[in-house]
Amino acid sequence: MNLLGERLRRAGHDVVLTGEPGGTEIGMSIRRILLSPNYRETLTPLSELLLFMTSRAQHVREVLLPSLEAGKTVVSSRYRLSSLAYQGYGRGLDLDLIRRLNDDSTRGRQADVTFLIDAPVATVLGRKRGRGDRIEAETIDFYERVRQGFLELTDGDPRVHRLDGTLAVEAMADDVAHRLGL
Amino acid sequence: MNLLGERLRRAGHDVVLTGEPGGTEIGMSIRRILLSPNYRETLTPLSELLLFMTSRAQHVREVLLPSLEAGKTVVSSRYRLSSLAYQGYGRGLDLDLIRRLNDDSTRGRQADVTFLIDAPVATVLGRKRGRGDRIEAETIDFYERVRQGFLELTDGDPRVHRLDGTLAVEAMADDVAHRLGL
Repeated sequence: MNLLGERLRRAGHDVVLTGEPGGTEIGMSIRRILLSPNYRETLTPLSELLLFMTSRAQHVREVLLPSLEAGKTVVSSRYRLSSLAYQGYGRGLDLDLIRRLNDDSTRGRQADVTFLIDAPVATVLGRKRGRGDRIEAETIDFYERVRQGFLELTDGDPRVHRLDGTLAVEAMADDVAHRLGL
Repeated sequence: MNLLGERLRRAGHDVVLTGEPGGTEIGMSIRRILLSPNYRETLTPLSELLLFMTSRAQHVREVLLPSLEAGKTVVSSRYRLSSLAYQGYGRGLDLDLIRRLNDDSTRGRQADVTFLIDAPVATVLGRKRGRGDRIEAETIDFYERVRQGFLELTDGDPRVHRLDGTLAVEAMADDVAHRLGL
């Protein structure tokens, strides 16, 4: 994401790098709840979804829409697709409810381009092992469902570019720049 | 609520007095966001709804269902109806979305009995003036819509008892006890 930001800036864009959950004060409070190991047992799947959606509604209102209206280029780590993959495919919540909340929280705003960094679950879990926050402690099965979700949800979508997540980060950045014509 | 709790205890009930938002650790974190004057301008109506629903999902999972399963009698300040009145009638959010989230967050569990304390808006605002939290600072129009919502939503519902909120608290408690046969 940082490398993409650099290349966009070199190409003359006024760039905002941001991400969910967080990016706003309310989002940061929500992020603390989502990532706290204290709530691993008690936070319900529905609560997890609703907290991500709240963070998204604030992020869209406070960061995305004002930045876009000011003519800036916004690069966000995670957006609507993540909720469908994680809370829908991963946790088994109703995809129609998630789509409805996605539409409401983003005021219907879609990403122009999405990059999906795909890698085998074992590769990613090996990378993150030992960070110990709530989300990362989930099982391999959960991540397999999430990966399957990302792949199914984006299948055939011309606005989504898949990247090989096993490559070095510079190679991925080259691939992204190439696909954006930078 | 305290007087009702006392009378229920005297009648042999094992009573849990609780309320939303709050009642759980996650709920208290959410309550801080909802009531903070710092977020008065930025918190979107959808975010407000989703935060109340998150608090409700946690409250049901951590307090209501375990208490009911243990044979206790639960008295909660606010439940499903409040979201329909405040965020639906008050903020103008879609009632069907609120009903859906109410069903999901409560796992379909309805209150056996609801007491609605009704009073003219001017009376209640006079009582609360100067507390300065976010919700209380809303306009008289907002509260008129909320009151209208509570009255419409409960009209003809045999499980809802309306109380005259201009009466002294002891008189209301007598009314409640009478209606419960205590």
